[in-house]
Amino acid sequence: MDANARIEAALEAAMGLATGPGSPQGLADAMRYAVFPGGHRIRPRLCLAVASAHGTPNAQLVDTALASLELLHCASLVHDDMPCFDDAPMRRGKPSVHAAFGEPLALMCGDALIVLAFQVLARSAAVAPVRSAQLLAIVSDAVGAPNGIVAGQAWECEPSVPLEDYQRAKTGVLFRAASLAGAAAAGAHNEAWGVLGEVIGSAYQIADDLMDCVGDPELIGKPVGQDDRLDRPSAVRELGIKGASRRLRENIDAAVAAVPDCPGKAGLRRMIGKEAERLLSSALSARRAA
Amino acid sequence: MDANARIEAALEAAMGLATGPGSPQGLADAMRYAVFPGGHRIRPRLCLAVASAHGTPNAQLVDTALASLELLHCASLVHDDMPCFDDAPMRRGKPSVHAAFGEPLALMCGDALIVLAFQVLARSAAVAPVRSAQLLAIVSDAVGAPNGIVAGQAWECEPSVPLEDYQRAKTGVLFRAASLAGAAAAGAHNEAWGVLGEVIGSAYQIADDLMDCVGDPELIGKPVGQDDRLDRPSAVRELGIKGASRRLRENIDAAVAAVPDCPGKAGLRRMIGKEAERLLSSALSARRAA
Repeated sequence: MDANARIEAALEAAMGLATGPGSPQGLADAMRYAVFPGGHRIRPRLCLAVASAHGTPNAQLVDTALASLELLHCASLVHDDMPCFDDAPMRRGKPSVHAAFGEPLALMCGDALIVLAFQVLARSAAVAPVRSAQLLAIVSDAVGAPNGIVAGQAWECEPSVPLEDYQRAKTGVLFRAASLAGAAAAGAHNEAWGVLGEVIGSAYQIADDLMDCVGDPELIGKPVGQDDRLDRPSAVRELGIKGASRRLRENIDAAVAAVPDCPGKAGLRRMIGKEAERLLSSALSARRAA
Repeated sequence: MDANARIEAALEAAMGLATGPGSPQGLADAMRYAVFPGGHRIRPRLCLAVASAHGTPNAQLVDTALASLELLHCASLVHDDMPCFDDAPMRRGKPSVHAAFGEPLALMCGDALIVLAFQVLARSAAVAPVRSAQLLAIVSDAVGAPNGIVAGQAWECEPSVPLEDYQRAKTGVLFRAASLAGAAAAGAHNEAWGVLGEVIGSAYQIADDLMDCVGDPELIGKPVGQDDRLDRPSAVRELGIKGASRRLRENIDAAVAAVPDCPGKAGLRRMIGKEAERLLSSALSARRAA
């Protein structure tokens, strides 16, 4: 099974735990809508790539790790899009969850997706408690306060925010967790994998800032200009388009250099390089369009 | 340390994980505000009473179980009070979280409290992975879909809901989890404890319905008449005040009878009986006032 098919299958299996008979239909529909079809599935792909670079890790643990991270990412999009934050009408090229299902179901959909991530972790903890305990710590700290993505979103309610702290909490920690969880699922829990994830996360955040500034809303499936409109910190607002593009290039080089030793090091470096090409070409075409 | 002091200490310790240096101040303030001072702490008291009825269980596991359940309960109150659901201005005798901190922070506060419950579980999983895995399953399923409290809240978005299903998911499952988790923390995971929790949960739900119908908003610290206003299923709306009071009595008798065998069975029965007195007298004074 290729990576994409495997990720979708793991997410389908997770969704099956929550949306079967007995679930309120509106909630089940909203949860599926928030998760399928997905975006680039960047975090679970990173998690799977890191795990696979360690030979043949425990498949259930890897599926658990990647699904829980993607569910939490999707949950954060649902809540961040809501009227009291970004008030975003579109996401991934279709109406956002609250636009399609109303605010009450969007609120519960986000909550249920957060909890589902931990229901999935509970299933693997029943058969592999020690490694699952590591995953639970990695995943929960990457989402909660003080340093996780929920805290990152809450920084938007503060009068002033240092760009780096904000972006680390908003994006970096989940990339960090994806890389770290992939290694932990393979029995190779090691901080060096967290560093790799952080560097990759920074690159994605800068690319996202560039896209928000000069991207085509049709192509990226969501409104642009949100950072300016909502007065949010952004690499483009801090460094300009040229400076942000330069920093993106530096981050990609740093990511390739940061891959720790492992059996599949060469392949993982190639995969990161390829992904970087895609990011760079998106960002550069955004620059040209500007 | 008495039960109340121990519960507050466990919640303080949990809160310390999330609200220290590096946390956005508004989020940290909102989280503390949502949890302290508490209500009756009924769920953690049940959890602790069941665990203590088994002799001397692992203290960290018990604290983990009771804190995670109370954090999730507090999170559900924050989100249920929000304008898109109950639009409740007051909770526990003070402005609700969104009234005090605004909707964006209330949204993130609920999310962060949900995740904190699992950060707490991760800490005990690192030292007691097998029993913590049981707690993780009990707690996550009691909150998520299809049967947990988030699903219970989402039932309010459906065109029609059977009273029993709604109340089980809205209230019963968390009482079930409190009893079951107390037993699991003591190494005595057994479905009979889940049944006890469910019966106690039903009694509380009926008492709550009675209070909503005929209680004094000053005394109970929140608005009354919400079930009628929001067209929600309620034991009083289904059975009338007299019928609901009768069912409350039956539930209390059933709870005392449902205590499974354990070293502290007699004490646990007494504690449930005493708690029942308090519930009954609240409900009866509500009836008299009607």
